[in-house]
Amino acid sequence: MSHFDLIILGSGSGNSILDERFADWKVAIIDKGVGSRGSFGGTCLNVGCIPTKMFVHTADVAGSPEAGARLGVDLERRGVDWPAVRDRIFGRIDPIADAGERFRAEEQPNVRLLRGNARFTGLRKLSVELPDGDVTVSADRVVVAAGSRPRLPPIPGLAESGFHTSDSVMRLERLPERMIVLGSGFVAAELAHVFASFGVAVTVVARFGALLRGEDAAISQRFTELASRHWDLRLNRKVVGVERDGEVVRLRLDGTDGAQTIEAEELLVAVGRVSNADQLDATVGGLELTRHGQIAVDAHQKTTAEGVWALGDVSSEHQLKHVANHEARIVQHNLLHPHEPIRSDGLVVPHAVFSSPQIASVGVTEEQARSRGLDYVSAVQDYAGIAYGWAMEDTTGFAKLLAEPDTGRLLGAHIIGPQAATLIQPLVQAMQFGLDARTMARGQYWIHPAMPELIENALLKLPLR
Amino acid sequence: MSHFDLIILGSGSGNSILDERFADWKVAIIDKGVGSRGSFGGTCLNVGCIPTKMFVHTADVAGSPEAGARLGVDLERRGVDWPAVRDRIFGRIDPIADAGERFRAEEQPNVRLLRGNARFTGLRKLSVELPDGDVTVSADRVVVAAGSRPRLPPIPGLAESGFHTSDSVMRLERLPERMIVLGSGFVAAELAHVFASFGVAVTVVARFGALLRGEDAAISQRFTELASRHWDLRLNRKVVGVERDGEVVRLRLDGTDGAQTIEAEELLVAVGRVSNADQLDATVGGLELTRHGQIAVDAHQKTTAEGVWALGDVSSEHQLKHVANHEARIVQHNLLHPHEPIRSDGLVVPHAVFSSPQIASVGVTEEQARSRGLDYVSAVQDYAGIAYGWAMEDTTGFAKLLAEPDTGRLLGAHIIGPQAATLIQPLVQAMQFGLDARTMARGQYWIHPAMPELIENALLKLPLR
Repeated sequence: MSHFDLIILGSGSGNSILDERFADWKVAIIDKGVGSRGSFGGTCLNVGCIPTKMFVHTADVAGSPEAGARLGVDLERRGVDWPAVRDRIFGRIDPIADAGERFRAEEQPNVRLLRGNARFTGLRKLSVELPDGDVTVSADRVVVAAGSRPRLPPIPGLAESGFHTSDSVMRLERLPERMIVLGSGFVAAELAHVFASFGVAVTVVARFGALLRGEDAAISQRFTELASRHWDLRLNRKVVGVERDGEVVRLRLDGTDGAQTIEAEELLVAVGRVSNADQLDATVGGLELTRHGQIAVDAHQKTTAEGVWALGDVSSEHQLKHVANHEARIVQHNLLHPHEPIRSDGLVVPHAVFSSPQIASVGVTEEQARSRGLDYVSAVQDYAGIAYGWAMEDTTGFAKLLAEPDTGRLLGAHIIGPQAATLIQPLVQAMQFGLDARTMARGQYWIHPAMPELIENALLKLPLR
Repeated sequence: MSHFDLIILGSGSGNSILDERFADWKVAIIDKGVGSRGSFGGTCLNVGCIPTKMFVHTADVAGSPEAGARLGVDLERRGVDWPAVRDRIFGRIDPIADAGERFRAEEQPNVRLLRGNARFTGLRKLSVELPDGDVTVSADRVVVAAGSRPRLPPIPGLAESGFHTSDSVMRLERLPERMIVLGSGFVAAELAHVFASFGVAVTVVARFGALLRGEDAAISQRFTELASRHWDLRLNRKVVGVERDGEVVRLRLDGTDGAQTIEAEELLVAVGRVSNADQLDATVGGLELTRHGQIAVDAHQKTTAEGVWALGDVSSEHQLKHVANHEARIVQHNLLHPHEPIRSDGLVVPHAVFSSPQIASVGVTEEQARSRGLDYVSAVQDYAGIAYGWAMEDTTGFAKLLAEPDTGRLLGAHIIGPQAATLIQPLVQAMQFGLDARTMARGQYWIHPAMPELIENALLKLPLR
């Protein structure tokens, strides 16, 4: 059995903890890998944020003939070279993952990389399945950053259907004619956009009556309306069975208007992600789980086991890389300065959905404001009402703001439309640093006629007292 | 002679002063109009910000085949329907201008609209050239918001050449095969991008060795390099003569490597804009001019003549609509609350150039920091180094920041690349409200992998002490 100063489970955000200040530490990184290559580097780099955004931007450009048609520009989409797109993207990502692995495996004498599944066998003690047998390792400190994985719903026939998840679908050999996307969250919304823009006939199957139900209801509703123009939306549908018949996969659906069968060449299951905590025998290691099955942590990212920290998807209520990175910096500090620990909380957490249109959000939704009994006012500004929105001939996007009526303190911001993920940043900054809506709107310049006038005008519309 | 409570010269930002609080004031608006239609509403709406951005965005979309080619998306630009683009844009703008005019001329009993050139004949006294003869008007208060116009260089033969300026070029009957753009500032950069993207062979002639010389030198240099890939750039050239020969206009150029003659079907003169102060007999009205020929104002926007204010391009060192609008709000307040006047200064002034790539800037350039002897550090972050830049396959854009090394106070920010005019806003906000670089970078979340990570990373790269 080998003993280490530090064991890190996972090679995503956890891997970023190790900088030159750990050069004297004896460290083990344990990683089972992600995706079809079992890649080093975690979800974001290999099967998450990075490749999806590379595909999404390509899809956005593939959609420019529709934008051109509104503007007087005649563009023809002669085709999308799927193998070229795929190989460009993974030709960039895979070498980064491989170099990251090589660096830890070969170039750092103080680091040992163990590639395999790990399970706790005691306090800060783990058994790792390696190709040539299990090994047991222990450490003075353990960081659990083992991430999450696509959730697989218990549908009869699914396992035998040759379905894809976000782990595999971006490496498809060829584009199918038709794809069924099962799910209504951000992964479904982003990948449906990608494949539909590439010419695939996409059918989206959702349990409830709207997509992106975690967003403010006005955003979710607008997105669902727009999605129905591009995708075959089957809402309020339960999948009761899946079967593969040669090239075709069939889903039997049940809904308020009876049973249906739909078919396609490929099926993408995107019904959410679950923490990998359940694969670690965490409780044997002394780690309590939350009722959502995540590793429970305190504000210092400490678990219930002495000397064990956790971060990222395995323990966070947010499945967001920027949150995982922030938590990794907190854990890094707390490892190095155990007597002066810092907290990870206190930041407002924005997120974006890179579909079409783009969505970005921070703070409470109107539904949350109402259910929490907050005193609030709201304002909606359409892109169509600002000069740059005219330029884009945008008729569907808007920003919605929520604020305290007396103080002008911003409570929430929700944007659907072009550049949403960029436009949200000044609002994140205002909420974080306590800038009220009135001062934000009138105390600084907003370039005319640039896109942030959307925010300026939304702020000015807030009916503050 | 008619006497008014208030005379406003100009129908752009000046026109926005009149809200319901002026319902009891007897007001005259004097406006000679802009552009080929003599439109009401000022430069921005009719011949400036608004139509140019509508054309520019259309040009951006027309450029998507180049973006597609980098990404694996095969797009063909079959054509740009110039009459459709032009008529879509002015079909939207002209009715707004006309409705604005009708509102003042017909629907407001307290407002009289005089359409013609005006000249001061004494203190708060003006003579206006109307179609049926001159009239003289006077007022207790005068607001001079008479704007600016394209500067015309004294080149032999120019007047007879049938040239265009930004006042007329956006309404061309048809797209020429070739266009010569004379100038190197933002108007030249934006309109060269428009016409080149629409398939016109554009030659840009500039007096000096770079375009956009008002920008940080790194930005100006990068922009000039990139422009040379799309446009025929003739730098360090002086135009010594112009002549029209039927369908063709010829320019004789002189430069370090000798004389040249270039030709095209159309010539666009875009060598800057001058204040209209020189057309007003301002000194007769008691208004002093600056050495740049603008109306001199103090921080309350008061001129040297009692009861006369000025705002916007006629008096501002910035030719920016957001500045003019801000100054209009200041003047509005000071008209309504003469004993509690407020100041227009104290805001950091950002600007953007909507060319390709886009540019945005706020605060000092590195050259200004150096010449003013400021203690500063700088950092450059390429788009190519952030995830969204990977997604875009951007290899040319960057953000450059300048900050005080001890405090982290931001001194300047300069961005060239996609969404620059949106990305600058959090930096404007930070500079305006005193948020230092370190706190800005680490005290808030930046969505991963969204475009603002460009700013986050630039901030983190600043070598602060």
